[in-house]
Amino acid sequence: MLKNRLTELLHIKYPIIQAPMAGGVTTSDLVAAVCNLGGLGSIGAGYLSPAQLRNQIHEIKKKTTNTFSVNLFVPPNEIDMKENEIFKANQRLQPIREQFQISDVTPDITTLADIMKTFKDQIKVLIEEEVPVCSFTFGIPTNEIMNELKIHNTILIGTATTVTEAIELEKVGMDIIVVQGSEAGGHRGNFIKSGEESLIGLMSLIPQVVDQVSIPVIAAGGIMDGRGLMGSLCLGANGVQMGTAFLTCEESGAHQLHKEAILQSNEEQTVLTRAFSGKWARGIHNKFISEMKEFEDQFPEFPVQNTLTQSIRKAASKQNNSNYMSLWAGQSARLARNETVESLIKRVIEEASNIIEETKAW
Amino acid sequence: MLKNRLTELLHIKYPIIQAPMAGGVTTSDLVAAVCNLGGLGSIGAGYLSPAQLRNQIHEIKKKTTNTFSVNLFVPPNEIDMKENEIFKANQRLQPIREQFQISDVTPDITTLADIMKTFKDQIKVLIEEEVPVCSFTFGIPTNEIMNELKIHNTILIGTATTVTEAIELEKVGMDIIVVQGSEAGGHRGNFIKSGEESLIGLMSLIPQVVDQVSIPVIAAGGIMDGRGLMGSLCLGANGVQMGTAFLTCEESGAHQLHKEAILQSNEEQTVLTRAFSGKWARGIHNKFISEMKEFEDQFPEFPVQNTLTQSIRKAASKQNNSNYMSLWAGQSARLARNETVESLIKRVIEEASNIIEETKAW
Repeated sequence: MLKNRLTELLHIKYPIIQAPMAGGVTTSDLVAAVCNLGGLGSIGAGYLSPAQLRNQIHEIKKKTTNTFSVNLFVPPNEIDMKENEIFKANQRLQPIREQFQISDVTPDITTLADIMKTFKDQIKVLIEEEVPVCSFTFGIPTNEIMNELKIHNTILIGTATTVTEAIELEKVGMDIIVVQGSEAGGHRGNFIKSGEESLIGLMSLIPQVVDQVSIPVIAAGGIMDGRGLMGSLCLGANGVQMGTAFLTCEESGAHQLHKEAILQSNEEQTVLTRAFSGKWARGIHNKFISEMKEFEDQFPEFPVQNTLTQSIRKAASKQNNSNYMSLWAGQSARLARNETVESLIKRVIEEASNIIEETKAW
Repeated sequence: MLKNRLTELLHIKYPIIQAPMAGGVTTSDLVAAVCNLGGLGSIGAGYLSPAQLRNQIHEIKKKTTNTFSVNLFVPPNEIDMKENEIFKANQRLQPIREQFQISDVTPDITTLADIMKTFKDQIKVLIEEEVPVCSFTFGIPTNEIMNELKIHNTILIGTATTVTEAIELEKVGMDIIVVQGSEAGGHRGNFIKSGEESLIGLMSLIPQVVDQVSIPVIAAGGIMDGRGLMGSLCLGANGVQMGTAFLTCEESGAHQLHKEAILQSNEEQTVLTRAFSGKWARGIHNKFISEMKEFEDQFPEFPVQNTLTQSIRKAASKQNNSNYMSLWAGQSARLARNETVESLIKRVIEEASNIIEETKAW
């Protein structure tokens, strides 16, 4: 049931991909549980050091023998280091740091060279550890890296937010495309147009993309159950990627307050903000977003703003203060449940099967 | 096939509703063709005088004996008539008026009393003409009007952009709800939160709404073909409302340049703007939107700004200048075709049937 060229290519039972959420959400327990239950578990490795990544891969290999995936952030071609802008952005955060009694007032800004080095080392780990699937967000790696991974038979997944981006991903040799609808929680994966200009709902995005590319397409954004899975398949996708639905699972490493915020929120409460990282992302509205709202067009680019806010997010998390945490969530919060991965995946498949049965009666 | 409680309630063959686009798009030929082919044709009567509305109802009755629908704009509770704001907004348009050699420099602003009177007279026409279905956008009519229509067995359809709005529509006694996703072209139908705060993609909006209301739900926004129809049904909707797909049909009264703009555009080219009417609406980006961009938060409310720009839109239309026309369109422009209503509806149903066949094989 629900076999298709995506599940065949990835050697998975169900066309369900657990979204590679960065920042500690994708614990080894979460990833392995998804894999063992027939989906594709994914490590959100964007913020992991090469050593941390290797450790987690080892952990996961102990927990599952099935296919899993690692997601990396593609470094930007350049980072606009406007000193004045960075200084102002940092000053703006100072009162909040004081509130949390954070002493680190001038965070070290990572250079582009450092970011590139980390990325190349992450790739090296993937190759050495023979990771079967690698997905990318925020763009396309160099030809050199693409070729290196292809030589090692890594299946490559790119992330697109528009048809133009999807066409580009197929052209450079990706094997699969994740299309991220405007409904999606967390960072926007756009890399050609701006994050605000590429907010296309999945109802529009899926059919327009599948008409223009020939490789398998995974739909992402607001998909939480069997209805979302079947809806996406009807629209032409070959599978779905679910983030928020896995984030509130028992096995997820998301902060308890983050899980609770999602379970208590609704579709009107998420907003897009650059305040946490410098890149547009969707999360539940809170005090930090509201305090920073007037500066939305003044934050330094990702990852600079992300570095500046890091100590605040960390302290807020430690002190259980959700006012200053990044509460990433998609637009379907009302459908979130606190359950095990097993319960979620079984439920999705059962709901999908019921829809298929009903469809037969039409 | 595809029979459900929506098609039974509306006495239509297929769960396809032609969106009630205002401004001359919904010609009697378009509406009647949809009805005769098994869908629900709808007059977008928001800008029609009671006499014009009655005329069109007569025309349609000559062309079809099937159920059709009329859509009305619910008047606001109040209009914020800031004289200074209106003066400035009017001044801003003056150079464009001069460009088009428009002499009417100070348009008469309709009062709320006038708007209310027109609305009540429109309702009177619907009752006298025994129009079977009436849909509303921009809010909920008074209890008095709701009751009056109910006594005459009119089926009432409300428009919602969030779950909260959908719950409210069911509570006041609507029979059916249209849920408008962020993908939709034309005016946002929000009436509780602001137009920008209620941009929920259909992948999120449909399942969250159907979980909270018990009356039939029609999905609207970016739906152009059998994939969108089947996707919406899987997500829990009972039918679909299609606007852009009917707008480019032969029978539609949309300006030729409007049709061509949609047929040549793509999913990245629509934007939300208040420039044309004072209410957020999605259309293809053009010179007028770009010239007015910096004033987005300064336009007078609908319908004041709409009145101020009216002569410009009219002249642009007459002079075939699409730079200053409102080119409303949803996010699925790549899927638009120039075809007859017959070809569109047959295609949608054939595609849907094929998807059902494929699903049976799963």
